[in-house]
Amino acid sequence: MASTHRVLVSLLSITLFSFILSASSRHQHPLDPLTPAEFSLIQHAVMGSYGASSTNVTFHYVGLDEPDKPLVYSWMSNRADKQPPHRRASVVVRFREQTHELIVDLSSRPPSIVSKEVYHGHGFPILTLEEQMAAGDLPRTHDEFIRSIEKRGLNMSDVVCSTYSVGWYGELRSRRVVKVLAYYTNGTVNFYMRPIEGILMVVDLELMKIVKYHDRFTTSMPTAEDTEYRLEKQNPPFGPHLKGAAIVQPHGPGFEIKGHTISWADWKFHIGFDVRVGPIISLASIYDLEKGKYRQYAGNIMWRHTETGISGETIREVRSDVSLVVRSVSTVGNYDYIIDWEFKPSGSIKFKVGLTGLLEVKAVNYTHASQITEDEYGTMVGANTIATHHDHFLTYHLDLDVDGASNSFVKTNLITKPVAEEGVPRKSYWTVSSKTARTESEAQLHLGLEPCDLVVVNPNKRTKVGNNVGYRLIPGSIASPILFRDDYPQFRAAFTDNNLWVTPYDKSEKWAGGRYVDQSRGDDTLAVWTKRNRKIENEDIVLWYTLGVHHVPYQEDFPIMPTLSAGFELRPSNFFNRNPVLKTKSPKPVIRSCKP
Amino acid sequence: MASTHRVLVSLLSITLFSFILSASSRHQHPLDPLTPAEFSLIQHAVMGSYGASSTNVTFHYVGLDEPDKPLVYSWMSNRADKQPPHRRASVVVRFREQTHELIVDLSSRPPSIVSKEVYHGHGFPILTLEEQMAAGDLPRTHDEFIRSIEKRGLNMSDVVCSTYSVGWYGELRSRRVVKVLAYYTNGTVNFYMRPIEGILMVVDLELMKIVKYHDRFTTSMPTAEDTEYRLEKQNPPFGPHLKGAAIVQPHGPGFEIKGHTISWADWKFHIGFDVRVGPIISLASIYDLEKGKYRQYAGNIMWRHTETGISGETIREVRSDVSLVVRSVSTVGNYDYIIDWEFKPSGSIKFKVGLTGLLEVKAVNYTHASQITEDEYGTMVGANTIATHHDHFLTYHLDLDVDGASNSFVKTNLITKPVAEEGVPRKSYWTVSSKTARTESEAQLHLGLEPCDLVVVNPNKRTKVGNNVGYRLIPGSIASPILFRDDYPQFRAAFTDNNLWVTPYDKSEKWAGGRYVDQSRGDDTLAVWTKRNRKIENEDIVLWYTLGVHHVPYQEDFPIMPTLSAGFELRPSNFFNRNPVLKTKSPKPVIRSCKP
Repeated sequence: MASTHRVLVSLLSITLFSFILSASSRHQHPLDPLTPAEFSLIQHAVMGSYGASSTNVTFHYVGLDEPDKPLVYSWMSNRADKQPPHRRASVVVRFREQTHELIVDLSSRPPSIVSKEVYHGHGFPILTLEEQMAAGDLPRTHDEFIRSIEKRGLNMSDVVCSTYSVGWYGELRSRRVVKVLAYYTNGTVNFYMRPIEGILMVVDLELMKIVKYHDRFTTSMPTAEDTEYRLEKQNPPFGPHLKGAAIVQPHGPGFEIKGHTISWADWKFHIGFDVRVGPIISLASIYDLEKGKYRQYAGNIMWRHTETGISGETIREVRSDVSLVVRSVSTVGNYDYIIDWEFKPSGSIKFKVGLTGLLEVKAVNYTHASQITEDEYGTMVGANTIATHHDHFLTYHLDLDVDGASNSFVKTNLITKPVAEEGVPRKSYWTVSSKTARTESEAQLHLGLEPCDLVVVNPNKRTKVGNNVGYRLIPGSIASPILFRDDYPQFRAAFTDNNLWVTPYDKSEKWAGGRYVDQSRGDDTLAVWTKRNRKIENEDIVLWYTLGVHHVPYQEDFPIMPTLSAGFELRPSNFFNRNPVLKTKSPKPVIRSCKP
Repeated sequence: MASTHRVLVSLLSITLFSFILSASSRHQHPLDPLTPAEFSLIQHAVMGSYGASSTNVTFHYVGLDEPDKPLVYSWMSNRADKQPPHRRASVVVRFREQTHELIVDLSSRPPSIVSKEVYHGHGFPILTLEEQMAAGDLPRTHDEFIRSIEKRGLNMSDVVCSTYSVGWYGELRSRRVVKVLAYYTNGTVNFYMRPIEGILMVVDLELMKIVKYHDRFTTSMPTAEDTEYRLEKQNPPFGPHLKGAAIVQPHGPGFEIKGHTISWADWKFHIGFDVRVGPIISLASIYDLEKGKYRQYAGNIMWRHTETGISGETIREVRSDVSLVVRSVSTVGNYDYIIDWEFKPSGSIKFKVGLTGLLEVKAVNYTHASQITEDEYGTMVGANTIATHHDHFLTYHLDLDVDGASNSFVKTNLITKPVAEEGVPRKSYWTVSSKTARTESEAQLHLGLEPCDLVVVNPNKRTKVGNNVGYRLIPGSIASPILFRDDYPQFRAAFTDNNLWVTPYDKSEKWAGGRYVDQSRGDDTLAVWTKRNRKIENEDIVLWYTLGVHHVPYQEDFPIMPTLSAGFELRPSNFFNRNPVLKTKSPKPVIRSCKP
């Protein structure tokens, strides 16, 4: 359940960020995100199309409608004499309790509405921040809620309410509603650690009123003690004490940013941005010293919860290894996700996600673990405080184009064989057996059961000595869902049923959870698309890799959680003829005698 | 097979290092390594005990005979009025084709031989560097070898020979012999890429002569082209180009070294050293701000291939995270292992191993993969060059004392349960079920099959709210052996049969592969010790965790391999009452305006 909340909450926090970001962007590239100017043009065009009644229109999604890949590639091949492809925006609005999907063409002045359709399927679009805040304010003036707060001897001015998606549990008819939960600040900003239990509130977002209210039970309120995480609220003794350090780069940071295109070492890639998914790293390519050209192999590496990009460097021993780290931090309600893409000169890309922030807890009457008699679905992290078990599943959309769009997914199994030869004392050895997945079903994988290499190859390109050029995915720790397959939350999250899926590229298949996740019925997820079992051999293919963490909380995670990390790696595998950093010179030594 | 070579070769390369290191050490602590002065005292005492014939004595192991844990703890509790425990050395020598084990007491002047025993079991001690070099020189003057080199039209002055252990394949009688393989330099220092195939040589180390010689076949010699890795031997174009960076710490490095004891942030630990295993991190303890004292929980975290220690720092975002990295690099013949222990203020210890260096290759007549008709047990990484499949298994000896010596190993399974309650639409949920392993067999684990937490707890100590204090092991990627269980190499490496073993602490059980690994018959490994199925509940226990990598080479690994990393984490789990870095102040900002 936790996970389903998050999906929704996160989208909102991202919505907020996007506008800030876009404000600083100028577009020269077809994949550049929409600019503030374009946003207002779009707003004006859409409002206009609804005429007088436009005041009832609410915007739920506005994003670049990416041009088809071939158009982008051909534009890149000779920018000079090529017009950039038509620039279009994809828009989702709510109007009279209906979801409308619009495409706005920005190349014409004024922009024109190219298409406008009413969506009749299940699920609702991303909630707006405004309606979430409005819903959170309703209880404050709701008589029953006022009585509930009085009954508990609490102070209304210290109450904070926040909204959570309701999911879908088999109802035949769905209204656009959210659950509202109440928390208590009084003495701490960490209100998530002080839930006001027992009150069930449901708000209808179209009517913007509380349509369901139950005050079912009361529990002791966890104290504010030990929940503050702001430094100024801590009392001595402080510690552990850490000495400061700075990374000095007298010769400059080593990377170059032109518009949204970043060049560094042998890498070049484009960072776009989307309201819902955050930054999108596209057209990442690496310079092949031997071939003397850039190779278009790793397009559109995307993840669903990311916002901003800053860069850092790490120095390693042996031939100094320098990495460019594209870091993004996504605050998803109570949780924070630190997302790193680490680009290495060797051609590797390391993906790392750090989980931190605040746990979801529930208030209980127990003050000591020994009092607990039944399953409380969590760990006692403090008096009256149970931190609940939950999962994190992060699905990466990896649209690899290894030396071109036509690729295949090859599973290289490591298999044990008996020694056949006479007079050899060895009884066994292991070797490899590679199998190319012809269809989507053949590529679906549960990892961890058998040793294998997972390689995306270009079956039409070979190295000097005749190996297919490729890139392989090296998983980190693996977690799979452990709910029943036919449970409602797992329906909606069916895209986590496998650790890995491979699909033929389809522009409309962007979000593993489907386009309308709020109260989704799971009829528009990766798991459903792949039922068609399409051909994926020697095609433009997309890998969907899910990284998971089953989180059993421990007391160290309270009141704020030290970062827990997981990740995986994409690594060149017969992509180069030999070690691509053999001719890399270590960076010039830097004199360390710096004064603070 | 590769792995069995490495075990042996590595021990040798470490032997070399130890003396260099020890030279800089002074001992105040019972766990301090032997000093150069002590080494010569020991040498003198042992030689003396053999009288006139002492010239036939060769030293194969000299190391500190660690005092029993209780003695060390009681000494630490009140150093002032306590004599340090007797200082003793454990010595293994070869004399008249026999292995002798001696204990030398260094507290008496002159040192006395406390015990001297002849070892009659299987296997031989660590080879000395001298005898390896002598064996490698024999072929140069061996008539048959001279003819073989002439026959191949090669230049003897460019030939390099190196020795490899022969393992054990069921022979009833074992002599101390090594295999000798020949390589060709001519135009490169990377001779491992130019094996001279077809020549089988065996040297008897006691007789120091070639006792077996066969010239069986010849193959084409891979060219020296593209095999050089020294910068000065590279031709333009160079690249990718990297900008320099330095870490500046104007307020000092933040750690303090007193003798062999290192203090940093809330950590304190002792670095010892052993000829065979390299540094031994002991008595690592972390300061508990709340309890206001150091807690003795993680003693003797040890790994088998490590030598020296340098420190680095990384700055992370959110509340700046600073780590102390104890790094050691072990050159194991053709391979290099970069071993990091990352101590975090939060109480976590992250273990990371980086694999780099030179692959083992064999020469073949093929110049293109399309010519290969049968299994060549590897990948074609260049013309005439096959890099062979191999495994790396690194076993960590983790002697945790969580708040005292009496600990238990708890496996917390994550299990799915149906929802019982009436009217709840959810069908399933997951919860935890913890099981304490009572005996060794109950703790043996193959990871990756089912989700679980692996926790070492102190069943006698609880947190404020009543959870057992503990530390958990978070595995990274997992690999298990894929040879037949009854194959000879797997016999000797049977300690890799499980990813995790737990044993009661036994001073004599130091090395998972046994005391005498050269031609071991697998009768003295972790797998054999645990057959006794001893009690491990509420005992002083040791975790043995094996980290593995099945290495299918790719062309990028030729001629020298970009670092491939794997690791795991030890993380406090209800060890603290709450987040231990809540009161950590970020380091003072450092002004970055430094000039080169």
